[in-house]
Amino acid sequence: MGTLSGEKPKQTHKSARSRHEEVLDAGLRVFALKGYRGATIEDIASELGFTSAALYYYIKSKQDLLLQTVYRPIDSLIESANQYESFTGTSLEKFTRLVETHILLMIERRDWFIVMLRDQAHLPEDNILELRKRDREYRRIFTQVIIDGNKSGEFDVKDPRVTTLVVLGALNWTLQWLLPGGDVDSKAVAKEIASTLLNGIAKN
Amino acid sequence: MGTLSGEKPKQTHKSARSRHEEVLDAGLRVFALKGYRGATIEDIASELGFTSAALYYYIKSKQDLLLQTVYRPIDSLIESANQYESFTGTSLEKFTRLVETHILLMIERRDWFIVMLRDQAHLPEDNILELRKRDREYRRIFTQVIIDGNKSGEFDVKDPRVTTLVVLGALNWTLQWLLPGGDVDSKAVAKEIASTLLNGIAKN
Repeated sequence: MGTLSGEKPKQTHKSARSRHEEVLDAGLRVFALKGYRGATIEDIASELGFTSAALYYYIKSKQDLLLQTVYRPIDSLIESANQYESFTGTSLEKFTRLVETHILLMIERRDWFIVMLRDQAHLPEDNILELRKRDREYRRIFTQVIIDGNKSGEFDVKDPRVTTLVVLGALNWTLQWLLPGGDVDSKAVAKEIASTLLNGIAKN
Repeated sequence: MGTLSGEKPKQTHKSARSRHEEVLDAGLRVFALKGYRGATIEDIASELGFTSAALYYYIKSKQDLLLQTVYRPIDSLIESANQYESFTGTSLEKFTRLVETHILLMIERRDWFIVMLRDQAHLPEDNILELRKRDREYRRIFTQVIIDGNKSGEFDVKDPRVTTLVVLGALNWTLQWLLPGGDVDSKAVAKEIASTLLNGIAKN
């Protein structure tokens, strides 16, 4: 595979893909830490041990990197949520799963979410609108579960749209305080949060 | 008061103060819109119809403006919350008031909160720590109301600290979707949010 001139072996399709993923992950780490505006191509290259020139093989610009990654969190949320559409459990179970999945995905892919939520203002207008569209799509899934639960008599929600926003606010804000690793059992906290949102604070 | 040379009358102490407030407000409007990093002294001066030189009479730098304003939202929240400490109502009433006040203050002083929550990373380390300290102080008031409600049998909260974070997340996130003006009755929405957090989604 190598050549006499000492060139690197040609990457297989798979390893080129995973190297590409590594580049995106490193870029998001740097964006998350320094902010999109504060991060430079040099920072990202240095995070990878690349030269800037080598980095341009994978990404055309800082904005290209942002564009390649910024839909991932919302797309992952929608994909997970859609899996529960065909789920035959109660609305209560569906809601709990939606909440837990959202929190665990945010913990697992913290950098993605920080960049999407904080740095989207640096996207071209069209992409911001597309992001909002996908965000509405995700909210609709939550709202539908709440409406279904109202119908089945499990839930008692006056305004499912506002309640969806309240719930997603509580979930998105976990980015500020629920850190990965350490001695926190993320799954247990996710369950507790779901329970708080379902049952409220007041004693029944 | 004027002079023959056409100089402006000397400002009274009060009007100098309110002019100073106008400068801070304009600065926060520009920060909120463009982000701290994107805003320039020229932008702020132009928002006021000042020259940059005139602006420097009120603020020493962009960071000085940030430092003069960044504690205001959290201090206002703490001040309002402390008023309820001596309030003799039930924990349920106290909690509802805390929630409503928080939401209404965010609507009224939207720019303050956007800048505090988004741009605090541009503060010197000591000020970030001070901000965190005041944030903890505010959270402690919420947590205490929850603990008191548990004791009085009004609430049934397993982890008051985590629940405080969930509640404040839902409240802070209203900045993203609850816009001032328009045809939304902010007070009614604030009441609805308080009710959702108190009673949860599930039917009792």
